[in-house]
Amino acid sequence: MVVVMSPDATDEDVAHVVEKVQEVGGEAFVSKGVVRTIIGLVGDLESFHHLNLRTLRGVADVHRISDPYKLVSRQHHAERSTVWVGPTGRRVPIGPDTFTFMAGPCAVESADQTLEAARMAQSAGATILRGGAYKPRTSPYAFQGLGVKGLEILADVREATGMPVVTEVVDARDVPVVAEHADMLQIGTRNMANFGLLQAAGESGKPVLLKRGMTATIEEWLMAAEYIAQRGNLDVVLCERGIRTFEPSTRNTLDISAVPVVQATSHLPIIVDPSHAAGRKDLVVPLSRAGIAVGADGIIVDVHPTPETALCDGPQALLGNDLRDLAQAVRKLPPAVGRVDSSERAERP
Amino acid sequence: MVVVMSPDATDEDVAHVVEKVQEVGGEAFVSKGVVRTIIGLVGDLESFHHLNLRTLRGVADVHRISDPYKLVSRQHHAERSTVWVGPTGRRVPIGPDTFTFMAGPCAVESADQTLEAARMAQSAGATILRGGAYKPRTSPYAFQGLGVKGLEILADVREATGMPVVTEVVDARDVPVVAEHADMLQIGTRNMANFGLLQAAGESGKPVLLKRGMTATIEEWLMAAEYIAQRGNLDVVLCERGIRTFEPSTRNTLDISAVPVVQATSHLPIIVDPSHAAGRKDLVVPLSRAGIAVGADGIIVDVHPTPETALCDGPQALLGNDLRDLAQAVRKLPPAVGRVDSSERAERP
Amino acid sequence: MVVVMSPDATDEDVAHVVEKVQEVGGEAFVSKGVVRTIIGLVGDLESFHHLNLRTLRGVADVHRISDPYKLVSRQHHAERSTVWVGPTGRRVPIGPDTFTFMAGPCAVESADQTLEAARMAQSAGATILRGGAYKPRTSPYAFQGLGVKGLEILADVREATGMPVVTEVVDARDVPVVAEHADMLQIGTRNMANFGLLQAAGESGKPVLLKRGMTATIEEWLMAAEYIAQRGNLDVVLCERGIRTFEPSTRNTLDISAVPVVQATSHLPIIVDPSHAAGRKDLVVPLSRAGIAVGADGIIVDVHPTPETALCDGPQALLGNDLRDLAQAVRKLPPAVGRVDSSERAERP
Amino acid sequence: MVVVMSPDATDEDVAHVVEKVQEVGGEAFVSKGVVRTIIGLVGDLESFHHLNLRTLRGVADVHRISDPYKLVSRQHHAERSTVWVGPTGRRVPIGPDTFTFMAGPCAVESADQTLEAARMAQSAGATILRGGAYKPRTSPYAFQGLGVKGLEILADVREATGMPVVTEVVDARDVPVVAEHADMLQIGTRNMANFGLLQAAGESGKPVLLKRGMTATIEEWLMAAEYIAQRGNLDVVLCERGIRTFEPSTRNTLDISAVPVVQATSHLPIIVDPSHAAGRKDLVVPLSRAGIAVGADGIIVDVHPTPETALCDGPQALLGNDLRDLAQAVRKLPPAVGRVDSSERAERP
Repeated sequence: MVVVMSPDATDEDVAHVVEKVQEVGGEAFVSKGVVRTIIGLVGDLESFHHLNLRTLRGVADVHRISDPYKLVSRQHHAERSTVWVGPTGRRVPIGPDTFTFMAGPCAVESADQTLEAARMAQSAGATILRGGAYKPRTSPYAFQGLGVKGLEILADVREATGMPVVTEVVDARDVPVVAEHADMLQIGTRNMANFGLLQAAGESGKPVLLKRGMTATIEEWLMAAEYIAQRGNLDVVLCERGIRTFEPSTRNTLDISAVPVVQATSHLPIIVDPSHAAGRKDLVVPLSRAGIAVGADGIIVDVHPTPETALCDGPQALLGNDLRDLAQAVRKLPPAVGRVDSSERAERP
Repeated sequence: MVVVMSPDATDEDVAHVVEKVQEVGGEAFVSKGVVRTIIGLVGDLESFHHLNLRTLRGVADVHRISDPYKLVSRQHHAERSTVWVGPTGRRVPIGPDTFTFMAGPCAVESADQTLEAARMAQSAGATILRGGAYKPRTSPYAFQGLGVKGLEILADVREATGMPVVTEVVDARDVPVVAEHADMLQIGTRNMANFGLLQAAGESGKPVLLKRGMTATIEEWLMAAEYIAQRGNLDVVLCERGIRTFEPSTRNTLDISAVPVVQATSHLPIIVDPSHAAGRKDLVVPLSRAGIAVGADGIIVDVHPTPETALCDGPQALLGNDLRDLAQAVRKLPPAVGRVDSSERAERP
Repeated sequence: MVVVMSPDATDEDVAHVVEKVQEVGGEAFVSKGVVRTIIGLVGDLESFHHLNLRTLRGVADVHRISDPYKLVSRQHHAERSTVWVGPTGRRVPIGPDTFTFMAGPCAVESADQTLEAARMAQSAGATILRGGAYKPRTSPYAFQGLGVKGLEILADVREATGMPVVTEVVDARDVPVVAEHADMLQIGTRNMANFGLLQAAGESGKPVLLKRGMTATIEEWLMAAEYIAQRGNLDVVLCERGIRTFEPSTRNTLDISAVPVVQATSHLPIIVDPSHAAGRKDLVVPLSRAGIAVGADGIIVDVHPTPETALCDGPQALLGNDLRDLAQAVRKLPPAVGRVDSSERAERP
Repeated sequence: MVVVMSPDATDEDVAHVVEKVQEVGGEAFVSKGVVRTIIGLVGDLESFHHLNLRTLRGVADVHRISDPYKLVSRQHHAERSTVWVGPTGRRVPIGPDTFTFMAGPCAVESADQTLEAARMAQSAGATILRGGAYKPRTSPYAFQGLGVKGLEILADVREATGMPVVTEVVDARDVPVVAEHADMLQIGTRNMANFGLLQAAGESGKPVLLKRGMTATIEEWLMAAEYIAQRGNLDVVLCERGIRTFEPSTRNTLDISAVPVVQATSHLPIIVDPSHAAGRKDLVVPLSRAGIAVGADGIIVDVHPTPETALCDGPQALLGNDLRDLAQAVRKLPPAVGRVDSSERAERP
């Protein structure tokens, strides 16, 4: 931590800061400049926070230097992690050597629609099935999901296809029932800072797919992952899904740079969601190609057998030709960036 | 709703849209332009949503025209509402004719600190006490609040001072205990889209102070209020507290325009939080003056007897001279914009 | 300046940084922490920039501590400045003790329309006339202004009304002719980083009204003012006119906090433009009140005798009742925040 | 265009709008809904703009439906264009079938440094040389470029290497001298809305590389290209270089979606600049891969023989291993997305 004194700070002001830092067991190094003095602090960050250094007389600014997250940081865990998803003996990896394609319908609407979407996904190369039983919706008048009935459909489709299932949980009270039916819990963009939910997911015993808040910085996102990790669950996969910007031609702006930035600072795997980022079907294939090429550990895509009748996000679900183009990209591009498909490393029953 | 066809849409494409609209009981008015055709829809919005019009062949875009919220809209409730806060016989109004000043410590730390802060607030003119017992924190390693113990302190201070109490609730499971102790439930910026929490607050029987998500549009914010209202609770007060922008000199950017924008479209009262918007003590007084002058129905401000030792947001808490300046602004400016102080309209025990 | 070394930097890396800094005449103070080492630099900022410290081995980050602007900073010029606008003997002040109301049509369309708008402005209390002869337009197909003919109309209206004139210049090549006709040059939001234009305005001998780039940080804005000041012209007035954010209900988001932030770091006067920020007529009066109350040194507002026929920004121009409400706010609010109207301090012919 | 009437608009209000539209030769189609009436307009957009429809009584909102740009739109020019850069007989294409790699130093500092950087670029596969002789800098105290001397160096290096040269022009007055020495004029992010400069570039007779304003929407960017095209110059290449967002870990956020969005609406070629977007050397290679995979028509990258001593943007210039990685990506990825290298289609002397 670095404390910057204002130009009119007195020697007493500087001495007072030094004293406070020493009181909590820290060391303070004073550098006196022509206009300003700066003080470098060494010691326990948490204890410094309680000093409220910004309120001390003569203090102009306080800069944090180290990362505020620990368990998810690469600092003490240099090797990037692989998270395994699915029942023992049939687990699929998500990590630095493989490329994992997840797909399925935005919302589970019926057993038939879900099974058909899963078959589409699987034939295009997907190894993990996505599908929503609980939907967080901006409007209280919109379809909110099938709930437990949807979870049961997903569990049935897993049996029929052999694909592990990831599904969203929107309320801490639902974590047990979702963990019972699904192989991976998804925490959506609107709940990234729902700390009670993060902690419940951390105690669920299942891997977690943590979407980035649409307006969260990368650091805030990693702090949310830290909430999960702190409850003993390090099986967290991050998912970049677009951030809110001023550009109106896409629903959100896919922050493709977040992939290498996260990989440089955290050991957790990171995947890309091109469907929800853009909200436009015609962008899903090019953005999927970009996600693979930038080095993401996987992608997650909406597919639906009949987008016209979808109860949620129909406009972005892939079908027909587009799905064929995506399947081709998923086959050709990962090897060009040094990865093998997750199916080659998955456990075989 | 207006459907914009793409320039290469055929007559069959247009006819197909019209047919779909009529199938769900709507009317469609076709305007054929030189380059494009547009179709105006009249009828039930919800039924149109299920058509997934964007997925139909030839459709380039769909514009919504009406507001998506109903209960909180001024459309069928032209008069602006007043929300009353506090125990019967001692209630304080927040609404279009009055100006309500709320103040207190960001976090409840001890009985002494809370009482002292309440006395400071009251002597500066505040009529409602704010104070946090549950704190949503970005870091799992930061102080998370005193919980039920904090609620009890707040209830005691209410008895000692006569000020009704507003306090934050961060988890749907805590709503009953918070509603039992407090006079108004606060939903914080990070939980604005926590729909389970909104619904629980809607069923609590207490008025709700709903802070704007730091990255929520005004429409999304009003939709969040609609979630509360839909559970039968129309006693919602909105609180503008700054939005996330590219400007780094303030923590968030106070969107002062949100006050007249909300007042033009919703009947709910709206107040301003200058402390959390800026995150800088030196801006609290000027931003409070701006909030009063723009026409807000109240302001809510952090005060702390000893900001140096505050466990939360010390840097922005007011003290001494600043508090005196604020007290003066609260006395002088509301009359200049046609409002009386809430104390003059509050119920007397 | 502070150099933060990465956790795996070696002692040689640290020594290399220190050596480089000393080579250009600076001093380096090393603070060795448990995880990282930080190095505080004291000396000439410019010479440090040429070191490209970020490219040195082991360097993780470099933080600048001092402000990068000098001439417009309060650091060596603590007293806030007053800028005088107009011909000798009739000059109007813009500064810390007064409140200056500027108004006029967005674009000069004809002699009659301009004179009529000036009379409206003057009767509402305005002391400086605004009006555009050159218009920067997003579309090459939109009205681009009357040019020199417009400047002549403005000069005539100044004679008729006695109000000094501020008008925009959009091209460095036009600076001489604009400076010849107008009393103050306006640099618009789209040209805030047009450095050739800033320098030409700095050599014009006339005061400059510098609007904030709609996507510029306050620091970038002050750097733009520094470009003007560096050419010997310290008569710069800043104008906050809204920044681009994600909120769609207003054209831009008025950053009301920019007023006290600028006043804390720069000695230059700052005014608020509520018309262009919101782009909505119904917000002009409340935002004007907010601008006065927050402590701005003035406001600048669009008025037009017949907004229906305006060639530019008609929707936001005030008329009739709105103008009367504004006139009343301009009379009542400045005294409530300790300011007198500019007319009381203006030079009398 | 669609006019949305407010719920309390009268029949007279609607009739008045219809009448106004008909007066300028347009047609108006009225759709009367339960709550609101909407009016679809067909006819000449420009004439509708002059009506200031928003100022008419009863009008709540006006939506534009068609794109405001014409010459750069795909609407009447469905085939995507190829722009040829360089002297006759040695021209290099930028367009839909090829992939063009441009590289060079951010700033021209000396003949040796420029030649060395050009050799590095060429050996990594670049076919066009970039390099800045005029630099727009935020600070008036920073290096502003060598000017005409820099242009001469670039022209010499073109002779030595055979690579066509693209260089930035920052002032309309410099367009002739830059056009005389360079093969393509670059307009930088800060000047995207400098309309005088755009028009001068449109009259220069040279192809133009138009960078996106860091805070410009895609529509505003295409309108800026329209300014150039309107002067008779359709040889415009767009360059996505990152937009300003709230995320601090990269200098700007590369809006990778802009590539397919632009390709869907405009026939102009579009390339990606990964160096200036991120401002971080370690992201240049992954973002280059993403740019190629998303379908960009080229990329433009900073290289420098000795980044440590660079006078401008040293931290992001590639060297050694990174450059080898990039050269490999440029060889392997374009064929995987169906493109051949520009060198295979370039004219041979």
